Amino acid sequence: MNQDQLLAGLEARNPAALARAISIVENARPGFEALLSAIHPKLGRAHRIGITGPPGAGKSTLTECLVAAFRAEDLTVAVVAVDPTSPFTGGALLGDRIRMESITLDDGVFIRSMATRGSLGGLATTTREVCDLLDAAGFDRILIETVGVGQSELDVAAMADTSVLVLTPESGDGIQTLKSGIMEIADVFVVNKADRSGADRLRQEIEITLGIRKGSAFRNIPAHHGALESGPAASEPDKAEWRQAVLGTVAVECRGVDELIASLAEHWEWLEASGTLRERRRRRIRDRTRDVVNRAVKAWIWSDTEADRLIEARLDEVERGTVSPYEVSHEILDGLKQGTKL
Amino acid sequence: MNQDQLLAGLEARNPAALARAISIVENARPGFEALLSAIHPKLGRAHRIGITGPPGAGKSTLTECLVAAFRAEDLTVAVVAVDPTSPFTGGALLGDRIRMESITLDDGVFIRSMATRGSLGGLATTTREVCDLLDAAGFDRILIETVGVGQSELDVAAMADTSVLVLTPESGDGIQTLKSGIMEIADVFVVNKADRSGADRLRQEIEITLGIRKGSAFRNIPAHHGALESGPAASEPDKAEWRQAVLGTVAVECRGVDELIASLAEHWEWLEASGTLRERRRRRIRDRTRDVVNRAVKAWIWSDTEADRLIEARLDEVERGTVSPYEVSHEILDGLKQGTKL
Repeated sequence: MNQDQLLAGLEARNPAALARAISIVENARPGFEALLSAIHPKLGRAHRIGITGPPGAGKSTLTECLVAAFRAEDLTVAVVAVDPTSPFTGGALLGDRIRMESITLDDGVFIRSMATRGSLGGLATTTREVCDLLDAAGFDRILIETVGVGQSELDVAAMADTSVLVLTPESGDGIQTLKSGIMEIADVFVVNKADRSGADRLRQEIEITLGIRKGSAFRNIPAHHGALESGPAASEPDKAEWRQAVLGTVAVECRGVDELIASLAEHWEWLEASGTLRERRRRRIRDRTRDVVNRAVKAWIWSDTEADRLIEARLDEVERGTVSPYEVSHEILDGLKQGTKL
Repeated sequence: MNQDQLLAGLEARNPAALARAISIVENARPGFEALLSAIHPKLGRAHRIGITGPPGAGKSTLTECLVAAFRAEDLTVAVVAVDPTSPFTGGALLGDRIRMESITLDDGVFIRSMATRGSLGGLATTTREVCDLLDAAGFDRILIETVGVGQSELDVAAMADTSVLVLTPESGDGIQTLKSGIMEIADVFVVNKADRSGADRLRQEIEITLGIRKGSAFRNIPAHHGALESGPAASEPDKAEWRQAVLGTVAVECRGVDELIASLAEHWEWLEASGTLRERRRRRIRDRTRDVVNRAVKAWIWSDTEADRLIEARLDEVERGTVSPYEVSHEILDGLKQGTKL
């Protein structure tokens, strides 16, 4: 399959072509940048929705409900499950995946797990690129679900157009246990297992923290991703602010999912109407380009320069302590700056 | 405090100098590489011990026992607690930290939490550099404890001389749930909560998997970190192999800790006698130097070249889809290769 065939297959949403393209991108195989470059003009149609939350909150179950609801509207859906490879959480997650993959008989649905540890550009960059492939393939909705816990939640939220934070009444002592930053990145809050005791209290707590409910002690201004994106902090123009939604669901019965779908649609409309979508996407283009440069530079240094050979040549001295790694790094960087091959 | 004063303070294990030096390194403040370069000749004295395992295994409690036991032998101990900043695990961990910090009245003990998210060189690189500062400050033992879950466990294990994996009978369906790779990196296995039911079965299971116990189905050859280290796979010389130890502890009562201390000492002796210590450290010098180069190159590109300005100039075209981020990256890389300022 050459690149033209691959691109044609992608556009036809051919599962084999998709799997092939994703594998090329995931493994940074020859031609992966040309492929991503070729699909670049087709991007921006899909609504990318991040689904994040602590383990056991019901993210996978909720994702399944969303898939079914979108399909009922005749929308195509791709699910990217991001697992930052915790070495201690093999079992349970695998079960989730298998369960979810039972819905893939429908060809309007595509599901992919991502767990690229130690990849050259990092999991977040690769995940964004896989989402691009799915966007170019014409999926209407892309659900990016984080399976593990950790930094990846914030990274995933930063790559979505809309971020959904799923919490449950059982997830600890309420929102107090959430680290700072996590409240600000969510556009939609879902209190799952809303039929359990404590659910109303959790919703109230979230609303008070967000300043939605009257009598709140303070007003936490939604930062709309600003804190997460690198680059100069864009001062957003004066415009109607998005009011973070707080919803209740019972994912095991897909209860409350219609409201969630409506809220997602509303957020998308707001993104477009307010100009925020364009702003965010420009910011992301900037970040993306930086990531691509970092990866390309790394690949260049370690395969096309003499950097590795120089490290080897200095190894004895570094071991003896007469030269430090920082001095060797200086020497390499000086060579790069002078454009010599070192 | 100039660098000479800082170095003198470090050597005297002055807590203020240590805190200052660590903060300089953590935040990559001006002069941090010069500082690390200056201490480089003094490294290699400390025994660096990684303590890893799933949440709730009792790592912090065990670490406290180890600190007390080392202090009883009049050894100085530094503890580096690495938390890869899960946004969902604020509460419990904080409690652990506060509890542990109650033992810091002893000036032979130093405790530091690391949670540098988004740092230029990554958490693992910075943690290694903080360990270097502690090594140069003359601490006899450095305990590197992972608090969170995720990739960091493997990274931390890769930076220690000796890796301890702490498991409990309750941590799921035994070792089957551990992802591949985690068994191979541990030099010493600790079954904590050894008084609970299932502890003996877990020990047996580990021993069989390791091939220590007779009647084992297969022999899993310990790879001694090899799988984790990048660079060419060194074929280790023919020498006595380390037999991974499997111990039981009850950390809340510090039971079994003497055996653990003995096992750690034994592993250290083996590392030295077999030549493995030197080999591993050479491999780490290589990896470290690569990390330092990557960080320095990143800093160079984004502060001393025209890369960012070029991205800005192309942003409209990238947004319109007429130019892709990959083409912009190419342009930047070509400029770097030609040694022009772009």
